[in-house]
Amino acid sequence: MKKQYKYSLLILILMNSIVAMAQKSGIPEISPLNWEIGFASKPTDAPAIWYPATVPGAVQLDVAKALKYGTWYYAENWKDYLWMEDQFFTYRTSFAKPKVGENQNCFFFSKGIDYEFEIWLNGEKLFYQEGMFSAVKLDLTAKLKDNNELLVKIYPIPKLYKEPADRSQAAQSVKPAVSYGWDWHPRLVPVGIWDETGLAILNKSEITDLNLNYSLDKELKSAGLSCTIKGANLQNCLYEWEIIDAKGKSVLHKEGSFMSNDIELQGEMNQVMLWWPHDQGIPYLYSMDFKLKDATGKLIDQKNSNIGFRKVELVTNEGGWDYPKVFPKTRSIPPIQIEINGRKIFAKGTNWVNPEIFPGIITDARYNELIDKAIDANFNILRVWGGGIINKDAFYNLCDEKGILVWQEFPLACNNYEGTPHYLKILEQESESIIKRLKVHPSLALWCGGNELFNAWSKMTDQSLALRLLNSQCYRLDPNTPFLPTSPLMGMGHGNYVFRFWETNEEVFQWMPKSHNSAYTEFGVPSLSSVEVLKNIIPESELWPPKPGTSWESHHAFNAWVGDTWLMPDVLKFYFGEAKNIEELVANSQLLQSEGYKCIFEEARRQKPYCSMALNWCFNEPWPTAANNSLVNWPSIPKPGFYAVKNACRPFLASACIKKIKYTEGEEFSADLWILNDLPVQAGSGKITVKLVAGTTQFKLLVWEYGTSAANTNIPGPTLRYKLPAWDADRFKLVLEVEGHPEYNSDYTLLYSPKVVNEKKANVLNQ
Amino acid sequence: MKKQYKYSLLILILMNSIVAMAQKSGIPEISPLNWEIGFASKPTDAPAIWYPATVPGAVQLDVAKALKYGTWYYAENWKDYLWMEDQFFTYRTSFAKPKVGENQNCFFFSKGIDYEFEIWLNGEKLFYQEGMFSAVKLDLTAKLKDNNELLVKIYPIPKLYKEPADRSQAAQSVKPAVSYGWDWHPRLVPVGIWDETGLAILNKSEITDLNLNYSLDKELKSAGLSCTIKGANLQNCLYEWEIIDAKGKSVLHKEGSFMSNDIELQGEMNQVMLWWPHDQGIPYLYSMDFKLKDATGKLIDQKNSNIGFRKVELVTNEGGWDYPKVFPKTRSIPPIQIEINGRKIFAKGTNWVNPEIFPGIITDARYNELIDKAIDANFNILRVWGGGIINKDAFYNLCDEKGILVWQEFPLACNNYEGTPHYLKILEQESESIIKRLKVHPSLALWCGGNELFNAWSKMTDQSLALRLLNSQCYRLDPNTPFLPTSPLMGMGHGNYVFRFWETNEEVFQWMPKSHNSAYTEFGVPSLSSVEVLKNIIPESELWPPKPGTSWESHHAFNAWVGDTWLMPDVLKFYFGEAKNIEELVANSQLLQSEGYKCIFEEARRQKPYCSMALNWCFNEPWPTAANNSLVNWPSIPKPGFYAVKNACRPFLASACIKKIKYTEGEEFSADLWILNDLPVQAGSGKITVKLVAGTTQFKLLVWEYGTSAANTNIPGPTLRYKLPAWDADRFKLVLEVEGHPEYNSDYTLLYSPKVVNEKKANVLNQ
Repeated sequence: MKKQYKYSLLILILMNSIVAMAQKSGIPEISPLNWEIGFASKPTDAPAIWYPATVPGAVQLDVAKALKYGTWYYAENWKDYLWMEDQFFTYRTSFAKPKVGENQNCFFFSKGIDYEFEIWLNGEKLFYQEGMFSAVKLDLTAKLKDNNELLVKIYPIPKLYKEPADRSQAAQSVKPAVSYGWDWHPRLVPVGIWDETGLAILNKSEITDLNLNYSLDKELKSAGLSCTIKGANLQNCLYEWEIIDAKGKSVLHKEGSFMSNDIELQGEMNQVMLWWPHDQGIPYLYSMDFKLKDATGKLIDQKNSNIGFRKVELVTNEGGWDYPKVFPKTRSIPPIQIEINGRKIFAKGTNWVNPEIFPGIITDARYNELIDKAIDANFNILRVWGGGIINKDAFYNLCDEKGILVWQEFPLACNNYEGTPHYLKILEQESESIIKRLKVHPSLALWCGGNELFNAWSKMTDQSLALRLLNSQCYRLDPNTPFLPTSPLMGMGHGNYVFRFWETNEEVFQWMPKSHNSAYTEFGVPSLSSVEVLKNIIPESELWPPKPGTSWESHHAFNAWVGDTWLMPDVLKFYFGEAKNIEELVANSQLLQSEGYKCIFEEARRQKPYCSMALNWCFNEPWPTAANNSLVNWPSIPKPGFYAVKNACRPFLASACIKKIKYTEGEEFSADLWILNDLPVQAGSGKITVKLVAGTTQFKLLVWEYGTSAANTNIPGPTLRYKLPAWDADRFKLVLEVEGHPEYNSDYTLLYSPKVVNEKKANVLNQ
Repeated sequence: MKKQYKYSLLILILMNSIVAMAQKSGIPEISPLNWEIGFASKPTDAPAIWYPATVPGAVQLDVAKALKYGTWYYAENWKDYLWMEDQFFTYRTSFAKPKVGENQNCFFFSKGIDYEFEIWLNGEKLFYQEGMFSAVKLDLTAKLKDNNELLVKIYPIPKLYKEPADRSQAAQSVKPAVSYGWDWHPRLVPVGIWDETGLAILNKSEITDLNLNYSLDKELKSAGLSCTIKGANLQNCLYEWEIIDAKGKSVLHKEGSFMSNDIELQGEMNQVMLWWPHDQGIPYLYSMDFKLKDATGKLIDQKNSNIGFRKVELVTNEGGWDYPKVFPKTRSIPPIQIEINGRKIFAKGTNWVNPEIFPGIITDARYNELIDKAIDANFNILRVWGGGIINKDAFYNLCDEKGILVWQEFPLACNNYEGTPHYLKILEQESESIIKRLKVHPSLALWCGGNELFNAWSKMTDQSLALRLLNSQCYRLDPNTPFLPTSPLMGMGHGNYVFRFWETNEEVFQWMPKSHNSAYTEFGVPSLSSVEVLKNIIPESELWPPKPGTSWESHHAFNAWVGDTWLMPDVLKFYFGEAKNIEELVANSQLLQSEGYKCIFEEARRQKPYCSMALNWCFNEPWPTAANNSLVNWPSIPKPGFYAVKNACRPFLASACIKKIKYTEGEEFSADLWILNDLPVQAGSGKITVKLVAGTTQFKLLVWEYGTSAANTNIPGPTLRYKLPAWDADRFKLVLEVEGHPEYNSDYTLLYSPKVVNEKKANVLNQ
């Protein structure tokens, strides 16, 4: 992060060297406290022992540290943590009465406590909340003594019922379902204080809410700004409101005084620089500064934030209105084409999951390196999947700064969240907090109710009250950001998640070209993690060969999704024969992932403009898996598939539509050539030389001279047809070389059988 | 209507002998006024001449009466009314100061003024409103003189732009689009005072809002009631709240006194009698009585209403969750299966349009006779289509009483209603009025945003702010009634609208069995109106033969939807040859309508349980058409097709799946036999004798002994196969006779060519 903002009067020492950048949510500067933690099996019992606690963090981590548990991600250690699910944890801190001036109040403040909790001061219960995404701001002033004891009592994790112990236990809480167990996440449900927390001394005259909205004119050249400020004791206070451009020049400045505790200011800006995702332009940010001063002009409160101007819409995909053609006519597909600042773009990206099992230990640095990798992969969008958390502020600030769009889901996934009065009440509270916190970010491209809620394994529908509530909340609080009830919707696609599907024996190379979806918002190809990752999580005695019932299974190599996912030894054996060692097995698996992902991303792009989006499942992971669809191993180690995807997502490249991965001597090899162009400008013509490379032998197949292409427009090219000769290698590459532009080159690794040993076997391979 | 309710202190004479039954919207009893009307072409000009006005009514009717225009529905008289669109009309009334007691106020009250208007009293502008569905209640007390002049100034009809003069002019107003011209409605856009209007003297202590909600327990046996009452000057007033069953027995009674201007009362009822649609049970209604008394016990205000207890949901159609089966997976279909009181039903019904071009002259009696006809047709649901008005209270009261479900759309149809701030503001106001007025009716089964908004000719999407607003409004104000953004949605079907489609040469008998929709919410088969209707609207000189460019075209016989719809002379000629006279042409056309509609309704029922609904387009019409898909001619004259549909919708019947309408000698006749059973109880076994009847000749084909059938479950039977012999008649009937149950009998009229004169021609016929 490049800038640091202060947004409240400095009184106490900063908690971190990096302050989360100011948002318009009125988050004060907070001073940390020293915490201890204890637990008991009954709510009425006091903890018998107190251990040091790290805040933010998670109760499990404190206990594990104190009791010297093995690290949770090694072998099957996570099982040792399970007993903590049903305990009553208490955080305890003591502090001397801070210096609170006559015109000040002392607050206990927390950006997030997970999940249901009470706050006690000096033996008195002051506060109760269910919900981890609503900040707590609790005025302690009148209750403070010279020496104070503050307790945060955490309830056991929410469970709809005792059994089955799976994600459905989360179906009546606004708690991310993923930690109840998923096909790439162990059962390990964090609770505790998970975001910045401490004391804050604030002036009695303070800004409690600053809501900045803008509307752009049709030409997207000028912006009308409206800033609503609410606060306490603002009468006769002075204000100064300023917008500053990236060069530090003030472009809007207003001063005045408050007559009451709220005010609405209007402003206009001309020649506005727009915010763009990184591959479309500059993610231009202005900064906003709002100063509150007392009648003498002394600064008493301040809010800073970034502001980026953009217009984001979902419009009907090109060709979408042409259907349905026949009677009886159903509806046309819902729009999923992103139009930003009047420009339709192809959205390339990935599904983002929690980068840690324990959100309390996600650092700004981790967000930074992962988002940098997403940019490096030529992604312009991240789908923050509904099974996980709403990220900390740093995530959205970084997306704003680096220019990456965010598809933000609410924490609903793969369950039927029944609209009971209690659930709807908590969801209303939590969604309001989430929307108000995130809506200020120019990177926020769309809201979504959650993951796969309209499918058989969830059984929610358009009538589900929880989703109608979320649509209503987003409409009322942030109407200019699109809202999807869930993904997938009609015309969109999720899956498949394997290179070769056991039900149909189809490879990605076959199912993908015949699919016709407006957006591929989940698809995956699994691979093993690299050997060094495996050695860090699987005991040496279990490492070879991989077997179910061991750490391999706990780390999702077996029985993760279905059967032998994600390792899929049978598929690897089918293509490569028996591997001799772990290194070979990993290499084979990673080759399939690389070629499979490349196929899907490039084919989705070939289906442009009807198709407008491709997001693989998934980008990162919350702990080190043994096998997974992820591109980046925990904490942020790219797999070979990452680089394959990065190449497939280059704005401009030579591409080939491959029909299958394995060939035999004498067989005809065929592939359709393409120029894939997502560039926002016209692209020049060029010449592609196509070769097959087998070992040291090269076969030049074709030269294609392609013409210029309009912005964001592909060029279909010729179809290669070539009878494969004999050579002595079990692999070959199709290589596309673009004259003078090696950065546009592509290659595809394919498998080869030099001769047909057994005709029956060859037929199976060629299916 | 069986009952009369009084809901305010009686002061002035009743306006009509039938008082609209009380709803919980706080509508006072109103005393009518004598009105005049005038017009001017500029808003600043006073009308030069004043004519008598009828209120409620429409300005066009008053002017037409004064200027002796021909009736609007004869020939092409409607064209004479067009100039009024752009005039500024003023209603004028004078009245002496009414007797207003010290504890009373005098209000001007109107249930509806269409569309944008001002209200002036004694030269002073007191009120402005855009929107015909929000009642006006204007306190005149302080402004009254001994003699008063009250003006209602009506703006010209809203037009988004001057040209084209079609429905798209209505795309920024909450005014029904239909009157701007439709394929069965001339361009004739009503404005004026369209519902009960007059003066009301109310006590200063009065109830302004009574909101009664209930929740049923899981067994649907007991109800928890909550009644929120708001009012003015209620402190120290007494109240009495009572629920009375259909036998007059009090089942809930509470008394008390007001401490403030609002109160929330709770009550419980056990052994609740549920409200059912007429074909499923008794549409049981309780009545609610709320009395307001002053501290001495004197009655000062009163609200009465009916209350019916039912739980209505849209659930996923049976089999809906089985799809999608393949990857990439899109979503499952949205639910359209109505479940009422825990019972899934097959919804049979029709699309309801305005029963008059001028809503001001729709009488309670008209609603009554049309709804009786819908019940007689075995319909259990009416879709109040979004191109038309929200009906007057009597409509919904009658549906409550007679037990017919209402699918209620908001006034959006076949346009892209852009979410501009102004439009959204009016839509929010109007939808709030509509929802609060209608949500109290047990007949209200579902809300819908409007007609065909997600299709190419409208181009709204799930992102359209107007539809997100409506979903939000319904969620906030009436969460327990399902909401559809539009019809059709994914899996549902609209169309086709003709017996034989010119693009595919398919008959209903072919397209319908191969369709696979969860609900057929629009489909039509056109016919000519009966000869007596035609003679009332088409001048004798134009009557034969029908020609485009005459009153035939104005009355939708030509160029209504596409080309030669709705008369379709080529299709009639194709099946029947040239008609000799109007009588023969009408009979041929009505035969196709009857057999076509029977096919669709019965086939939709055969597709149960995946299919759960069949609603034909349309039931009634707003003026007498020459040709239309309607079943009932204006004002309420059933066509032969009505009786065919009535038969097809019997709860239990013998049915045959016919493959085509026209056969030749020697050809094999084939049909699948079915028992169609929508009964809510198990049905007994029986015996069906199947015959062909050609003139006086009968051919007995088959006897089928069918077994018992579970509630709401069909029985598939054998397939008939019979080589057609020679006979001397151009028609024949397939007759299904059920032994001992003639009420289950069915027959189908088919066409016959005695011999093949020309082989080529026969092939065309047999396509």
